[in-house]
Amino acid sequence: MDSTGPGRERIATVVSILSERYGEQLSRNDTICRQHANATSWHPVEAPDAVFFAESTDDVVQVVSLCAAHAVPVIPYGTGTSLEAGVNAPQGGISLDLSRMNAILAVNEDDMDCVVQAGVTRKQLNTHLRSTGLHFPIDPGADASIGGMASTRASGTSAVRYGTMKDNVLALTVVMPDGTVCRTGTRARKSSAGYDMTRLFVGAEGTLGVITELTVRLHGIPPAIAVAVCAFPDLAAACNAVISSIRYGLAPARIELLDGVQVRACNAYSKLAMPEKPTLFVEFGGTEKAVAEQVELFRELAGEFGCESFDDASGPDERARLWTARHDVYWACLQLRPGAKFIATDVCVPISRLADCMVETHADIEATGLVAPIVGHVGDGNFHVSIMADTADAEEMARTKAFIDRLNRRAIAMDGTCTGEHGIGQGKRRFLMEELGTTVGYMRQLKASLDPHNIMNPGKIFDR
Amino acid sequence: MDSTGPGRERIATVVSILSERYGEQLSRNDTICRQHANATSWHPVEAPDAVFFAESTDDVVQVVSLCAAHAVPVIPYGTGTSLEAGVNAPQGGISLDLSRMNAILAVNEDDMDCVVQAGVTRKQLNTHLRSTGLHFPIDPGADASIGGMASTRASGTSAVRYGTMKDNVLALTVVMPDGTVCRTGTRARKSSAGYDMTRLFVGAEGTLGVITELTVRLHGIPPAIAVAVCAFPDLAAACNAVISSIRYGLAPARIELLDGVQVRACNAYSKLAMPEKPTLFVEFGGTEKAVAEQVELFRELAGEFGCESFDDASGPDERARLWTARHDVYWACLQLRPGAKFIATDVCVPISRLADCMVETHADIEATGLVAPIVGHVGDGNFHVSIMADTADAEEMARTKAFIDRLNRRAIAMDGTCTGEHGIGQGKRRFLMEELGTTVGYMRQLKASLDPHNIMNPGKIFDR
Repeated sequence: MDSTGPGRERIATVVSILSERYGEQLSRNDTICRQHANATSWHPVEAPDAVFFAESTDDVVQVVSLCAAHAVPVIPYGTGTSLEAGVNAPQGGISLDLSRMNAILAVNEDDMDCVVQAGVTRKQLNTHLRSTGLHFPIDPGADASIGGMASTRASGTSAVRYGTMKDNVLALTVVMPDGTVCRTGTRARKSSAGYDMTRLFVGAEGTLGVITELTVRLHGIPPAIAVAVCAFPDLAAACNAVISSIRYGLAPARIELLDGVQVRACNAYSKLAMPEKPTLFVEFGGTEKAVAEQVELFRELAGEFGCESFDDASGPDERARLWTARHDVYWACLQLRPGAKFIATDVCVPISRLADCMVETHADIEATGLVAPIVGHVGDGNFHVSIMADTADAEEMARTKAFIDRLNRRAIAMDGTCTGEHGIGQGKRRFLMEELGTTVGYMRQLKASLDPHNIMNPGKIFDR
Repeated sequence: MDSTGPGRERIATVVSILSERYGEQLSRNDTICRQHANATSWHPVEAPDAVFFAESTDDVVQVVSLCAAHAVPVIPYGTGTSLEAGVNAPQGGISLDLSRMNAILAVNEDDMDCVVQAGVTRKQLNTHLRSTGLHFPIDPGADASIGGMASTRASGTSAVRYGTMKDNVLALTVVMPDGTVCRTGTRARKSSAGYDMTRLFVGAEGTLGVITELTVRLHGIPPAIAVAVCAFPDLAAACNAVISSIRYGLAPARIELLDGVQVRACNAYSKLAMPEKPTLFVEFGGTEKAVAEQVELFRELAGEFGCESFDDASGPDERARLWTARHDVYWACLQLRPGAKFIATDVCVPISRLADCMVETHADIEATGLVAPIVGHVGDGNFHVSIMADTADAEEMARTKAFIDRLNRRAIAMDGTCTGEHGIGQGKRRFLMEELGTTVGYMRQLKASLDPHNIMNPGKIFDR
């Protein structure tokens, strides 16, 4: 960020106008500003000049219009759980906090959709839906805002069954970089009406406009749910069991793989005694009969791939205990190396390459000497190496960064991606170029067309 | 189309260069040119000046680059089954026929995807896949090319289970309006790597570039399939049975509604004796046990909504006979009024509004005095009124057009769309504006950014 110059002056002008007009809705408090910048990755914190707490789409229109008039950066902020520094403010400007826009505007039970403001979190929405038999199943782990989840094209454990945010947003209300309000679609389940503007904003990381409202799909909660936990002799066997079961037509709601190191961390943190081997957590949903049949079929298939232990946990308490262990992976990792920082990675490859990619990566972790358990959404070919690093140790960080580079390149070389669900943010801009090459030039062209002054979350996805 | 002027000269130049360079790959034959323009809608035929039969992505690069240099229109052509005059050439130019690009480049069974050239048709692909246990289930009725299906964001009877083309394309190879070749994604199942360029081209109707190759998802063919056919006292009862079964968690692979007029037409054409009442065709797939359970649950639910006859056809012959009747709707309609032209409509509304929309539309058909059966992909809220019209009768055509206008506006007023799966083409440009308003201005901006000389399929989606 320039500390002097015309950019500084323009920002100061906008801050003073907003402060006068909105009072406490604008904060220049240093702690609040720093809290609104990157807190979850190893990238340096780059704080905004001020944080504006929007309470309505009209507030957003006013702020964006003012920032557009003065060419001042706007950084949309949901809950700040971005793992690639998506909320940093490298050029300063206004962090636009949408957390007060947390109204659930409509639940249309028969249509299995709802309309929410961007600041509604997924847990808040699911609590609200409790009496309907419906849920919003996209589950990235963190209790992120629905607007933020759309902006990073998030997914998580349930994508193998329910898809990603791309598949679950019907329409958006977006404040464009010129302050105009657009609605990108209708509540129709499908449409061929012109360009898919909805999908253009899903995954754009706030670089093309500010999402203020979303119409999202809901899904029925299945009447019966069962979970199987099974340990395999090696990563390849576990991956092959997954491929085989999907080919067979089994339709798990979740299918997660933990490597031996991760199981050890979970055992220690969650007081469990799972065999410290590559382990699949598989969840099935449906009628009681259908679920029982799927579990039995999966037991047979897992057996063919050398499954060494099969724990069929169909009671809700047992199920909750196991999924809690899976969801507490973050804390379990931190406990694995107290004081270390958690560095996330996020590659995704065609499932036929998953075993190769994981085995090579596992060998690389050992050769590099990192503390780095692996957990994967293996039904999608997506896995995360969670590196527990001492960020103050320059030599270790150099080794860590080199490992991440090799991991991203390994996935790209296998016709996969450097990011399955976290986004590009600041952290993966180089790899976006390596992955999609000339196509990135056309992305830039779209960005320049809709945001000619580059005020929307500048420095994310693209270098400038 | 200007019959004189600089546009004509530029086209003549391009035609003569291509003719010299490529010989028989370019045709100026009047019959061939007219065959390549609109053949399936009531819009007037507007023929291109020449048809180029591309045999490779490189051929497409050469033609598009040449047309770009001379600002000559390029109209991508698959099988010509567009229902909204998407292949007309209102400004003349080159029809780019991709039907010779019909190679299946790779089938990745474990990944459940394949890579095809744009001219491969869905039936060709499914024949090729026969020994794999996999299929490409998107089924718009016509044996369209996969490239054309992507370009119109097609779907059809199976969308309730498998989604639309938007959900089944992983990556595209596109020749951009400047002749550059882009690949929009990888074979990873999901990705958060920058803007969703794949979804931008899906549904763009060839106005942003030429799709030459596609990586599409495949799905396992379920081990057991059953079909139920059930007649209801009225349209509302049939719609409500559908809503209720989806809320209950039944997952039909197809769920189609025919109104009484359509059933009568099918009975006459396909020599069946179905009760001439609103009738649902429902297909379930899965294991034998799961399918049997779903059919029984559906029988119970249908009974609650007054189902008057329930025909459970689980044998493959019986099933084929019924689905053939459903697929022969087009021919059955033509026989209903010999000599009439088939005019397609394509609204889609939130499913809670489906019964209202169909009942109002039914009354409108009667009041307007049209021969117009209804068939709907009701699991999605999408239905087609097939108007059998005497296009030579100006008064009848005026009534027909006024009816279509009312139908489109009725759907839009119910927060639905004027097109669920056919696209905008030339026929629905006005309604796109009524449906999405200011958002259409930003679509134009994207178009202008990627195709500044407006050479790619001009006059489609937008007026100019």
